[in-house]
Amino acid sequence: MPNRVNAEKPVGVFDSGLGGLTVLSAIQEKLPNENLIYFGDTARVPYGSKSKETVIKYSLEILDFLLEKKVKMIVAACNTVSAYAIEEMRKKSSVPVIGVIEPCVKTVSQKAPENEKIAVIATKSTIKSGAYEKLLKKVRPDVYLFSKAAPLFVPLVEEGFSEKAVTEEIIKEYLDEISKEKIKHIILGCTHYPLLKKTIKRIYPEFILYDSSIETALFLELKLKENQLQSQNKAAGQIELFVSDVTDSLYDLEKLFFGKTIDRIEKVLLGW
Amino acid sequence: MPNRVNAEKPVGVFDSGLGGLTVLSAIQEKLPNENLIYFGDTARVPYGSKSKETVIKYSLEILDFLLEKKVKMIVAACNTVSAYAIEEMRKKSSVPVIGVIEPCVKTVSQKAPENEKIAVIATKSTIKSGAYEKLLKKVRPDVYLFSKAAPLFVPLVEEGFSEKAVTEEIIKEYLDEISKEKIKHIILGCTHYPLLKKTIKRIYPEFILYDSSIETALFLELKLKENQLQSQNKAAGQIELFVSDVTDSLYDLEKLFFGKTIDRIEKVLLGW
Repeated sequence: MPNRVNAEKPVGVFDSGLGGLTVLSAIQEKLPNENLIYFGDTARVPYGSKSKETVIKYSLEILDFLLEKKVKMIVAACNTVSAYAIEEMRKKSSVPVIGVIEPCVKTVSQKAPENEKIAVIATKSTIKSGAYEKLLKKVRPDVYLFSKAAPLFVPLVEEGFSEKAVTEEIIKEYLDEISKEKIKHIILGCTHYPLLKKTIKRIYPEFILYDSSIETALFLELKLKENQLQSQNKAAGQIELFVSDVTDSLYDLEKLFFGKTIDRIEKVLLGW
Repeated sequence: MPNRVNAEKPVGVFDSGLGGLTVLSAIQEKLPNENLIYFGDTARVPYGSKSKETVIKYSLEILDFLLEKKVKMIVAACNTVSAYAIEEMRKKSSVPVIGVIEPCVKTVSQKAPENEKIAVIATKSTIKSGAYEKLLKKVRPDVYLFSKAAPLFVPLVEEGFSEKAVTEEIIKEYLDEISKEKIKHIILGCTHYPLLKKTIKRIYPEFILYDSSIETALFLELKLKENQLQSQNKAAGQIELFVSDVTDSLYDLEKLFFGKTIDRIEKVLLGW
């Protein structure tokens, strides 16, 4: 019997900045009955260049904020948080916490043939964490994971250069190695990368791309079902956006990553 | 008569991150007798994507830290701070505070012929602040300033791509407009850009580049002289580096921007 009171609570989604809105967008599309709360730590973005200790500290502050908002489940829509702070968050959280790494690894591990080579492309910090590798080794010790940091992809996407010729050149700079290794299964290990899918596929039509935003939305659906926490309220589907700093680029980035701007925005001070 | 006690105090230099080490490097070369303290806010870098309010708050925290270290003068080796927070810092500081914008504007205003067109390239936030424009208008109302944001230059430099072919393409993407306008005097309005000088000059040999790190070192020399605060101690020349987070890329970025690593590093918690 589903717990009706808890099922009507919102899902909390957060990221170091606004890149996680690609995850929010996929969740909204997949689960239109859910009320969603998004927190973007725009005052302290990016997390990728910070130490593990700092990322944990910030993530726990956000956890407190989301728990105060009475969320029923939390999605850490940030690869750095998923790599460095998810265990600490789970220890302190009264509700389930989902990251973006596990869902992708789950899907790719189901789809990849035996002894297949798989690649993950991500930011430097995510690659350095070895989080994809560790998780994949557990479920598919037969596959070989090729890890590649692509630090310029985030600024290229944010500059609106996703489909420019010069971006094709930089994509080749990072991914030619993977193509030469005849690797086909590619995990996009960063919330910004879904915007590069089209350009990557144009250069490498043979690639099968695993988009963490879509995989995470599917994983959330499964976890809500398992916990009997799916909202049945068709009048729901509200989104509230909280940020730690109202920056000049806020609306541009909302449009870039969410496709539109969100009406309900509030500034929250964390760690001041 | 110089104040010997004050003259032997260190100069405080700070930046949102480690890019300001290009300024520290130029200062050390120009003023080898000075003891230098550098603070890089590596936990909260970059400032360019933050609101003015946040930049002022962080700058004043750093001011307090440097004043506690008994510095005789402060260099804000950060264009965002120089644009948004320098006045607030001066109001609260017991020692002179120098930014990186004024020195460049001073030199270019002395060198540019009448009614000349000048360009400044910088990050989005520096361009948006209009700080170069305002300052230049005061001293040379005859010149026309063409402002161009080049957001990808910082990540390209940090990725070590300064001299790659793909960087040439992105430089052209941003600067062809300036070249077509027949503008020759170009202010490099970001601490990272000195590393792109060679590549820019290869594409546009006609450009006269104004390097804010060198201009700021010269300006500091002048201000120390004016205030009779030049160190006469030939055994000085010590550098101490303080950061707000010890990140993985710390040593790489030190080498990139300072040419070598600095032995004396200490982590300081600000705003925790």
